[in-house]
Amino acid sequence: MRVETITTVLDLVGVFINGLLGGSVARRRELDLFGYVVIGVVSGLGGGLIRDVLLQHGPPLALTNPLYIPIALAGAGVAFLLKFTERDWNRLFYVLDAIALCVWAVAGAQRTLAVGLGWLPAILLGTTTAVGGGATRDLLVQRVPAVFGGNGLYASVAALVAALQVICSALGAPTVVGTSVGVVVGTALRLVAYRRGWELPGGLEWEARDVIGKAVHPPLRRNRRRGRRRDGDD
Amino acid sequence: MRVETITTVLDLVGVFINGLLGGSVARRRELDLFGYVVIGVVSGLGGGLIRDVLLQHGPPLALTNPLYIPIALAGAGVAFLLKFTERDWNRLFYVLDAIALCVWAVAGAQRTLAVGLGWLPAILLGTTTAVGGGATRDLLVQRVPAVFGGNGLYASVAALVAALQVICSALGAPTVVGTSVGVVVGTALRLVAYRRGWELPGGLEWEARDVIGKAVHPPLRRNRRRGRRRDGDD
Amino acid sequence: MRVETITTVLDLVGVFINGLLGGSVARRRELDLFGYVVIGVVSGLGGGLIRDVLLQHGPPLALTNPLYIPIALAGAGVAFLLKFTERDWNRLFYVLDAIALCVWAVAGAQRTLAVGLGWLPAILLGTTTAVGGGATRDLLVQRVPAVFGGNGLYASVAALVAALQVICSALGAPTVVGTSVGVVVGTALRLVAYRRGWELPGGLEWEARDVIGKAVHPPLRRNRRRGRRRDGDD
Repeated sequence: MRVETITTVLDLVGVFINGLLGGSVARRRELDLFGYVVIGVVSGLGGGLIRDVLLQHGPPLALTNPLYIPIALAGAGVAFLLKFTERDWNRLFYVLDAIALCVWAVAGAQRTLAVGLGWLPAILLGTTTAVGGGATRDLLVQRVPAVFGGNGLYASVAALVAALQVICSALGAPTVVGTSVGVVVGTALRLVAYRRGWELPGGLEWEARDVIGKAVHPPLRRNRRRGRRRDGDD
Repeated sequence: MRVETITTVLDLVGVFINGLLGGSVARRRELDLFGYVVIGVVSGLGGGLIRDVLLQHGPPLALTNPLYIPIALAGAGVAFLLKFTERDWNRLFYVLDAIALCVWAVAGAQRTLAVGLGWLPAILLGTTTAVGGGATRDLLVQRVPAVFGGNGLYASVAALVAALQVICSALGAPTVVGTSVGVVVGTALRLVAYRRGWELPGGLEWEARDVIGKAVHPPLRRNRRRGRRRDGDD
Repeated sequence: MRVETITTVLDLVGVFINGLLGGSVARRRELDLFGYVVIGVVSGLGGGLIRDVLLQHGPPLALTNPLYIPIALAGAGVAFLLKFTERDWNRLFYVLDAIALCVWAVAGAQRTLAVGLGWLPAILLGTTTAVGGGATRDLLVQRVPAVFGGNGLYASVAALVAALQVICSALGAPTVVGTSVGVVVGTALRLVAYRRGWELPGGLEWEARDVIGKAVHPPLRRNRRRGRRRDGDD
C-alpha cells in the first residue's frame, strides 16, 4: 500500500514535469496557448496513452483517472506563465525526471503483464510508456525524437528497468521488489550516464557487401574494394 | 430526430470539405493519386478515428458507418480532378468549415460522455475530434500543425464548443440544446475571430529564473539581471 | 493448412526484411542502437499494429504472437551489424518485399472482414497493413512517406490486392484462392511497375476556378484569365 502510494505520486510528478517540459518546447517554437496545452498533454500523457491503446483493455488510464489530465495541464500552464527553457528544466528536474522515467517503465511493464501478454511485449510497452510521450512531442514539433541518440541512455534505461520488472515478476517477487529495484538501479544508471555523456553505439561498420553482396555481383566488387572503409573513421 | 438528422448531415458535410481540403494539400505537395486518398481520408476522418481509438469502445464510427469513407474519398477525388488551392478552399468553405468544426466538437464530447468518462476527457476528445484530422494531415506532409497558432482561434473554438456541450449535459438539457448552443455560439465566434485575425497569446514573459532559479544558482543571477527582459517586447 | 503455413512464413519474412530495411534507414540517419530497434520494430510491425488498433478487437497480433517482435528485432539487428544501404536492400530483397506486401494486404483485408466490417474498410485496412509500417517509419525520421509517390505503384498494388481479396471473399471462394490470386497478381504487377518505373498520376489540371469560382467572384475572373495555365506545364 505504502509503495503503491509512492509510485502513484512519482508517476504524477512525472506527468507534471513532462507537461512542463512540453510547455518549454512549445515556448521555444513560439506556439500559442493551445500549442502549450497539446504539447504538454502529449509529453505528460502520450506514453501511457499509446500503451493503453495498444493493450486494448479499456479506456486509457489517463482518461479514466481524473488526476492525469489536470496535472499535465498544470505543467503546461506553468511553462506558459514562466519563461522556462529546456536547459533550465534539465538543471532543475533531471533527477526527478530520471525517477519518473523508471516509474513509468515499471508501470508499463506491470500493466502489460497484468493483461496477460508476454515478457517481450512487456519490455516493449514499458519502454514505450516511458519514452513515447517525449517522442510523440518531438514529432509534433518536427524534430527527430531525442530518444534516437545523444541523450545519455535515456531510452535504454527505460528498457532495462522494464526488463528488471519482468525478471522480478517471473521470479515471483512481490511488486514492491521489482518496483524498488527498477527505480533505484535505473535512476542511478541514468544519472551516471547523463553526467558522463554515455551513449549507445551507432551501427557497426561491417560491410554487408562483403558478406552478402559478393554472391550477387562478384565482378563489381573489385573496383569498389579500393575505396572501401573510406567512410569509416577508425 | 430532426436535429439528429441535421447534425449527421453537417458531420458528413464536414467530412467532405475536409477531404477536399486534404486533397488541396496533397496537390500543393505534388503527391500522386494515392497521396490524395491518404491525405483526404486522414483530413476527413482522422479526428474521429483518434477519438474512437482512445475511447476503446468498439471499431471507429468511420469504419462501421458505410458513409464516412466514401464521402471523404469523394472530397479527395474532387480535389484531384479540380485545381483547387487552399486559398480557394478558404474562400468557398470557411463558413461550412466553421459549422463542421463545431458539429465535430459536439459529437466528440457527447460520445465521450456516453462512454462514461468525465468532463475533462470530454472536452479533450471533443477538441481532438474537431482538430485531430487536420493536425495529423499536417504531420503527414511535414508541417507544424496549423492548430498550434495563427489560425483564428480554430482549436480554441472547438474546445469552447465541447465545454458548452459538457455544461449543457451536466445541466440535464436535452441533446438538441447543447448541440444548437454549441454550434451557433461556436460558429459565430469562429467567423468573427477568422475575419478579425484574433489569436491566442503566446507564452508570457515572466522569468522562471526569477521565481525558481534564484534558489538554485543565486550567485549567477547578478550579472544576468542587467540583460534581463531584453528579449521581451513590451 | 499448407497454404496457411506458407502465408505465415511469408508474413514473417516480410517482418524480417522490413525490420532490416528499417535498420538501413536508421543507419542512414546515424541513429544509435535504440534507434535501430524502434525503426526496425515500426517498419516490421507498424502496419499490423495500426490495423489492430483500429479494429479494436483485442491486443494486436504483433503483441500476442511471440514470433513477431523477435523477428523484427532480428532484422534491425542485422542492419546494425552489417553496413547495409537502402539500395543494397532494394537489390537483394525487392522480390521478397513485393511478395510480403501482397501477403500483408491479404491478411489485413481478411482480418477486417472477419471482424464483420464492410468491403471498403477491408480495402482501407488491407492497404494500411501493407504500407502503414513504412509510412510511420518515414514519419519518425522526418521524411514525407515514400508511399505518397515515386515508388512503382507500391501502395496501389496493396490496395488492388486487398480489393481482390474482398471480391474473392464476396464470391464465397475459399481463403486459399483469394490469397493465391492476390499474391500472384499483385507481385507480378509490382515487379513490372518497379522495373518500368510506372507511377500513379498526380493531380489533374482542371481549373477549379473555372468550374466553381466563376459563381463566386465573376468580376475578378477577367484579369486573371490572361495569366491562366501559366503554372501548368503542358
